[in-house]
Amino acid sequence: MSAPDASPLRLGIAGLGTVGIGVVKIVQRHAEMLEARTGRKVVITAVSARDRTKNRDADLSSYAWEVDPVALATREDVDVFVELMGGHEGAAKDATMAALKAGKDVVTANKALLAHHGQALAELAEGAGRVIRFEAAVAGGIPVIKALTEGLAGNAIRRVMGVMNGTCNYILTRMETAGLPYETVFEEARQLGYLEADPQLDVGGIDAGHKLSILAAIAFGTKVSFEHVVLEGIGCISIDDIRRAADMGYKIKLLGVAQMTGRGLEQRMMPCLVPAASPLGQLQGGTNMVVIEGDSVGQIVLRGAGAGEGPTASAVMGDVLDIARGTRLPTFGQPAARLADPIPAAVSAPAPYYLRLQLLDKPGALAKVAAALGDAGVSISRMRQYGHADTTAPVLIVTHKTTRDAIDVAIAALPATGVVEGQPVALRIEEV
Amino acid sequence: MSAPDASPLRLGIAGLGTVGIGVVKIVQRHAEMLEARTGRKVVITAVSARDRTKNRDADLSSYAWEVDPVALATREDVDVFVELMGGHEGAAKDATMAALKAGKDVVTANKALLAHHGQALAELAEGAGRVIRFEAAVAGGIPVIKALTEGLAGNAIRRVMGVMNGTCNYILTRMETAGLPYETVFEEARQLGYLEADPQLDVGGIDAGHKLSILAAIAFGTKVSFEHVVLEGIGCISIDDIRRAADMGYKIKLLGVAQMTGRGLEQRMMPCLVPAASPLGQLQGGTNMVVIEGDSVGQIVLRGAGAGEGPTASAVMGDVLDIARGTRLPTFGQPAARLADPIPAAVSAPAPYYLRLQLLDKPGALAKVAAALGDAGVSISRMRQYGHADTTAPVLIVTHKTTRDAIDVAIAALPATGVVEGQPVALRIEEV
Repeated sequence: MSAPDASPLRLGIAGLGTVGIGVVKIVQRHAEMLEARTGRKVVITAVSARDRTKNRDADLSSYAWEVDPVALATREDVDVFVELMGGHEGAAKDATMAALKAGKDVVTANKALLAHHGQALAELAEGAGRVIRFEAAVAGGIPVIKALTEGLAGNAIRRVMGVMNGTCNYILTRMETAGLPYETVFEEARQLGYLEADPQLDVGGIDAGHKLSILAAIAFGTKVSFEHVVLEGIGCISIDDIRRAADMGYKIKLLGVAQMTGRGLEQRMMPCLVPAASPLGQLQGGTNMVVIEGDSVGQIVLRGAGAGEGPTASAVMGDVLDIARGTRLPTFGQPAARLADPIPAAVSAPAPYYLRLQLLDKPGALAKVAAALGDAGVSISRMRQYGHADTTAPVLIVTHKTTRDAIDVAIAALPATGVVEGQPVALRIEEV
Repeated sequence: MSAPDASPLRLGIAGLGTVGIGVVKIVQRHAEMLEARTGRKVVITAVSARDRTKNRDADLSSYAWEVDPVALATREDVDVFVELMGGHEGAAKDATMAALKAGKDVVTANKALLAHHGQALAELAEGAGRVIRFEAAVAGGIPVIKALTEGLAGNAIRRVMGVMNGTCNYILTRMETAGLPYETVFEEARQLGYLEADPQLDVGGIDAGHKLSILAAIAFGTKVSFEHVVLEGIGCISIDDIRRAADMGYKIKLLGVAQMTGRGLEQRMMPCLVPAASPLGQLQGGTNMVVIEGDSVGQIVLRGAGAGEGPTASAVMGDVLDIARGTRLPTFGQPAARLADPIPAAVSAPAPYYLRLQLLDKPGALAKVAAALGDAGVSISRMRQYGHADTTAPVLIVTHKTTRDAIDVAIAALPATGVVEGQPVALRIEEV
């Protein structure tokens, strides 16, 4: 073992929001513990944020202050640039690239940056002989990047799944427990400050999609390809769907799934039904969960807080301490030049589907629906018609395993039956 | 970044049981993938096992064969000694020490070895500038050693808990689902080959206790001290306890808990009640679960297969690949010389307790029991008396938070009431 580096590891932190201050607190509170665990002092030399005058919950007086994050990133007395500004263009990107070019290692919590520029950053880091680490970018405090890249590196990964947007899971859970419609809970979440400034990042699945694309790159040795993630948000989910799914033994989750099949790489971030008794089905509120399936290990489930000061700062510090200890890996677990261009799967793997439709109260109506499904090659596993006071009755169908194409053909054929009102809802049932 | 080592990493594997053959299969099946992920070929040069003639499910013809594991461990053409023999004395210990002294890194799945000789091995490894890695020793395929040592290294750990013996969890789950008594399910497990040759290793909590002592050392920076683990097996658990606990919303698990309190280090491996709705409560069959609580990250839950060829081999390979990639950490996450002598807590942290007793059908009987508990300072949270055809009635009590000492005083006072028959059962309710 070559003599480990015993000089202090000097951090420059750009971005002093919740997570940045969380990192400052850990470095200050646990100086002795961090030194015991790495053999080096871990110190902060400089920080940067937009507003210097803002009152922050930490003493920053001993750190140099840089107005310009690029200047921070390239300071002589900074070894590791800790990027906690967010955003995939502008200052975060510029400063990260400047840091790597200046020979600094980078630790970031920025999922958007990695999702959009992961390959370029990986190439830049490797060319400069530096590392870029991003445990905090995916599933907050859960050490999932480490598990996938290192602990499970002996496995051919079959599938990675995750509930990775706490706000969406909060909304879906709250709709169920309080019996409130989507719009009401959405508004609650906004008022509680749970939503991003652009709520589509959350409820449209974009934020979770960024995370999925990062996991997929590591799992399957492909270049990050967020542009190939099939995104569907949770806005289409009604309280009825949640209740009916529960009747059939399922929960609805905004579930990300990445898998490599003979048809290519699938990346989906969409509302799915999962068995209520499964670990994913049991996940409540803002907690995150990632499920990794490997050919040797089988299924590994990781669960923890997906956001917040402490958990995210914990993940940032995990990366910092690895760097302090001299652990150096390629960005996505193998050299950037070896990462393959992913071939996105044109069709998704077959699955059972959940269909909800409003049936007109006419003789033979159910038979007509069943026939339309049959004609499309969709076979019915379970069907429930609910009582009604109205001229239409809600009907739920769980199909046998079929393709999304067949489901779409069946749905397109339903209006012609003359017995279905409105737009049917079709949700994939992911076998977990 | 210094130029990484690109020479092949050469493994010598001692022990060709299920796990050893699992490792051979991964190395053979995934040669290309392993090279992509580490930048080096990973090869097996030599193997060793007791019986060369045994028919094994892998082609070993290209590997040198050593009868003596010490000879294998010290071969010129071995870089990493992979110890999969088991047992904490004899060949496993001798060969591991010989390997370290000969300048080899070691990867082992041997929890007993680490539990009994962890400190000595850590000192030996560090003195020789070598590493000893043991992900496979705890919770099979779950990368928990890595999560605790690396990913969560920025946290002061508050508590580590785990269900880490699949056989015990299988027995308890099966008792509940099939309604069978302990003795019957124990016999089933024996016939299914789930039990160690000495079943006390499983049902007495020794195997799980070994694992807990390893986790505690990493979590709290103390020397491994298996001798201080308070061990209670599952033999005292009746089908009645399982049913009554379920009535009150709990499951019974053989749960390991390590925590550092003002009173010192607590290490307990004993049957506990946990809420049925918690991740630990929902764990069925042979699956393992480890819960880590850190001051920043909050609660992280890791779940997966705790044993078996694939999962355990996956963990072994995670360690091998870290070594191939040049990752080098102290054995328990900090230098052996820094690990403190643990001060075992004389008393365990207060908790609610579950009490089951048989009450004689006499007027005022319940009042006498309540008074005895009160005199011992034990306050009752919930009590249920069940109907009975007999002269005695089962009574269940859930106490408020109290100490084990107070519970023991209360139990000792019960015979004098003259209304309690037989020996009461007292189980800790762990707040998870």
